[in-house]
Amino acid sequence: MASPNPIEYSDASIEIREIYDEIKLARGIQDVSNFWKYLANDPVTLRRTWTSLKEIMGPGALDSLTKELIYIAVSATNNCAYCIRSHSASASSKGMTDAMFGELMAVVGMANETNKLVHGYQIPLDSP
Amino acid sequence: MASPNPIEYSDASIEIREIYDEIKLARGIQDVSNFWKYLANDPVTLRRTWTSLKEIMGPGALDSLTKELIYIAVSATNNCAYCIRSHSASASSKGMTDAMFGELMAVVGMANETNKLVHGYQIPLDSP
Amino acid sequence: MASPNPIEYSDASIEIREIYDEIKLARGIQDVSNFWKYLANDPVTLRRTWTSLKEIMGPGALDSLTKELIYIAVSATNNCAYCIRSHSASASSKGMTDAMFGELMAVVGMANETNKLVHGYQIPLDSP
Amino acid sequence: MASPNPIEYSDASIEIREIYDEIKLARGIQDVSNFWKYLANDPVTLRRTWTSLKEIMGPGALDSLTKELIYIAVSATNNCAYCIRSHSASASSKGMTDAMFGELMAVVGMANETNKLVHGYQIPLDSP
Amino acid sequence: MASPNPIEYSDASIEIREIYDEIKLARGIQDVSNFWKYLANDPVTLRRTWTSLKEIMGPGALDSLTKELIYIAVSATNNCAYCIRSHSASASSKGMTDAMFGELMAVVGMANETNKLVHGYQIPLDSP
Amino acid sequence: MASPNPIEYSDASIEIREIYDEIKLARGIQDVSNFWKYLANDPVTLRRTWTSLKEIMGPGALDSLTKELIYIAVSATNNCAYCIRSHSASASSKGMTDAMFGELMAVVGMANETNKLVHGYQIPLDSP
Repeated sequence: MASPNPIEYSDASIEIREIYDEIKLARGIQDVSNFWKYLANDPVTLRRTWTSLKEIMGPGALDSLTKELIYIAVSATNNCAYCIRSHSASASSKGMTDAMFGELMAVVGMANETNKLVHGYQIPLDSP
Repeated sequence: MASPNPIEYSDASIEIREIYDEIKLARGIQDVSNFWKYLANDPVTLRRTWTSLKEIMGPGALDSLTKELIYIAVSATNNCAYCIRSHSASASSKGMTDAMFGELMAVVGMANETNKLVHGYQIPLDSP
Repeated sequence: MASPNPIEYSDASIEIREIYDEIKLARGIQDVSNFWKYLANDPVTLRRTWTSLKEIMGPGALDSLTKELIYIAVSATNNCAYCIRSHSASASSKGMTDAMFGELMAVVGMANETNKLVHGYQIPLDSP
Repeated sequence: MASPNPIEYSDASIEIREIYDEIKLARGIQDVSNFWKYLANDPVTLRRTWTSLKEIMGPGALDSLTKELIYIAVSATNNCAYCIRSHSASASSKGMTDAMFGELMAVVGMANETNKLVHGYQIPLDSP
Repeated sequence: MASPNPIEYSDASIEIREIYDEIKLARGIQDVSNFWKYLANDPVTLRRTWTSLKEIMGPGALDSLTKELIYIAVSATNNCAYCIRSHSASASSKGMTDAMFGELMAVVGMANETNKLVHGYQIPLDSP
Repeated sequence: MASPNPIEYSDASIEIREIYDEIKLARGIQDVSNFWKYLANDPVTLRRTWTSLKEIMGPGALDSLTKELIYIAVSATNNCAYCIRSHSASASSKGMTDAMFGELMAVVGMANETNKLVHGYQIPLDSP
């Protein structure tokens, strides 16, 4: 499998279809995105990832929009274009404005800069 | 300079002292942290970094606490212990609870996991 | 050289052709892949990289397939699509099944997640 | 919580103790490691991480030792000293020899080198 | 804004046009590159980034070409194709030859390899 | 080998001593650094790494100091404290001043910032 293929609903096993159905219902969408279709090559990972994301991304001590912003921050740092795009879409649907995205990027850029300055200058922890 | 040294206020030039004073006033602290004392080895970088952080981290379309959470998310992804600790202290002072920190970490961990799954499975962008 | 070009066999120097021939013979292929054609812009790096890979990737204390799996794990972590694809092809030819690839990705995803949790929570080494 | 603290068994809630007990039983150890004691600050993450690791790291299409080697490869790439150490201990207990560790490191080093050469030379995918 | 759009001169505000004009004048170009057109979605970041780059990238204790080489080294390590390409173009215009690019890549590859060997072997600092 | 140990000259095999001697002679030092003592756990990697570094780091199209600066840039980006320190020592011995180190760090910080802005804004390549 040098290059995995997406598994469409019509070709999926009963086990995979049940997860697809659950995702479609939870998100109110007609078809699951490529992320799920590729993970379906390993149904155990498909189920665990869906279960984990449901548990993590819902509102709790942090609201859902803040969680999406954090997700984008990590994804930009890791250069995951797919993740930036899909979580930006989620964030927009939850209220992220263009101004918020701009400030998010500004913080991400600055944090990456100062992280590396700290490494380069070998700055030790402040004494408490 | 295989190993830069911190520049204490008492040893600092007028130019550096002015920036230290500005930081101390803005933050209500007695002494600047190691981050600034090390950057002071290059006064141009010291000034630019302080000016940039002031511009970026204040409240805007995103509130200050959300910006601190994003900063921690990037710093955990980049393994910058100093940055995690200093921005966690800022976040705590702005209202971050233990439950919020726990959820922040959960999102950061999950985002790093799915970022790499997307890379590994070479998942293409969804057609619009 | 804002954008390096591949060096085809027909345009290559004697020195480069000798290395191409060696690679083709060792791998039983008609033409070397883009990786080698681009490295050929620097014949010293071309030769060193080929010599190093030959020394490292052959069977030893670890078998060749395990080494390919490790190569993919690093490449997914670093988001190197070219490397994931070429080493997945090698791994498949050495016996990697779809199920093995799925488990490989699961471990890579989880390791990236817990690596960042360890950073974020600043977890110290266990006392021995 | 600028600096989270480990939660010892004696201070843990019933919910956390149950997970600690499960880990201790599964691994045949007297006390859980710092990793679990820090994650216990967020019991939801503690449970999910334990459940996920159990599901992923057991033998399947890949044997347990190979999975540990992959875990170390990712952890070395991400510079997670805690993870390298704990998974090296697991790998050793499952049969990793010094020679195997040496070859693992050689592959990890080489993969990181060629990943970056591919990025730097902007090497395009080979046509199929 | 799941997918930001570039802001062309004809659609730009007065504030943005002034920065575009300054960049065009400083660089002797007819139109700014995509980098600036995308950052223009956040005029504060546009201005700060331009001001910072002007301050940093001019000749000082290090000449401009050396700074471009360093920029490429970081960008190859971070897998930023856009940055590699644009700074390689700048470096070429300042005198980078093909041989220099080849040696730059060789150092970048080797540094990434030994960085990870140091992490993997957990090599402690030498005593002074 | 959860935690590799350094191999001192007095405990080293003939094969390893020969490489240590070569390094000591080339660098004019009394004892090799920890880097070599840890790599000596795998003599094949020890020899290959020494041979490669000799080939790469000597003066060529780029002078030795520039190569050390590039090495530091990558090591700061990757957070390798050992590498930053050892290559800063080498760079200092070859003429790196404090002002040069400061500018190096400024470029490294800025490059890391703009690399991530490019990822986050998903900036496409400029048309040629």
